[in-house]
Amino acid sequence: MTLNEIDNLVKNSEVASIGFLDKDGNPSIRRVFSTWHKGLGGHLISTNTSSLHVQAFLKNNKACLYFDNCQTFQGVCFTGTVIVHFDHEYKAMIWSAGDENYYPNGVADEDYCVLEFQADHGRYYRYDGIGDISSKELEEYDKKAEFVNYKKK
Amino acid sequence: MTLNEIDNLVKNSEVASIGFLDKDGNPSIRRVFSTWHKGLGGHLISTNTSSLHVQAFLKNNKACLYFDNCQTFQGVCFTGTVIVHFDHEYKAMIWSAGDENYYPNGVADEDYCVLEFQADHGRYYRYDGIGDISSKELEEYDKKAEFVNYKKK
Repeated sequence: MTLNEIDNLVKNSEVASIGFLDKDGNPSIRRVFSTWHKGLGGHLISTNTSSLHVQAFLKNNKACLYFDNCQTFQGVCFTGTVIVHFDHEYKAMIWSAGDENYYPNGVADEDYCVLEFQADHGRYYRYDGIGDISSKELEEYDKKAEFVNYKKK
Repeated sequence: MTLNEIDNLVKNSEVASIGFLDKDGNPSIRRVFSTWHKGLGGHLISTNTSSLHVQAFLKNNKACLYFDNCQTFQGVCFTGTVIVHFDHEYKAMIWSAGDENYYPNGVADEDYCVLEFQADHGRYYRYDGIGDISSKELEEYDKKAEFVNYKKK
């Protein structure tokens, strides 16, 4: 896959699987909405502060983020770290209409926070081959990227 | 979700996401075909010996297995361990027509092996609630279970 094809896969996915280490050091997976992307490597995810994976990231920031198309069996797994944002800037940026169903107190809701996943490197899988994406390739590809919401209407 | 509803989700999935720890201890995810199940907790997966996740499991057997329905946004994540089987018994049991496309030397192909995932406990996610599945519940539910292939025709 080319980086552009991987980019299309990411931007069309809307959901992703986030990998983290639970309190006992076991790998664990949670399915999350992921529509805010900065190029290939940066991803913002709104989530409940009280959820197990947020509590896990506050102790260990190692993470992976896997985007796949469940029809065509192609996927990409990024390895990196997560920052948990509680500050107004990030929470306001990705707040969208309807989020009050999950966070009744609005942007300031203490149970609302934003995960920022930053990829270090990646690996893609498709019928025609498997390959690595290096830190250098990600850095180069994402040089001028800004966070954009790719949610479909 | 009831254990029966989770069982239906697993048996209708055909693919799952397996979580493992890479050589640097980072969480990583790979999408796999998973149609052989023993109740809720036991799962057999045919795979390439040379693939990164198999090499990872030979060093660290901690794993998770996540089944989800990408249409209905329901999922279950089992936490457990993986045994990598190279013996004829397991490799012959789950071999199926067409596998020679992946393993040209047949059942004895050295690049063919079988992952046995054994769940210790689990956690399910659905629109109407999140909940835990204890080791005891899994043990009780799976008491009389045998490995069966749930692949759709």
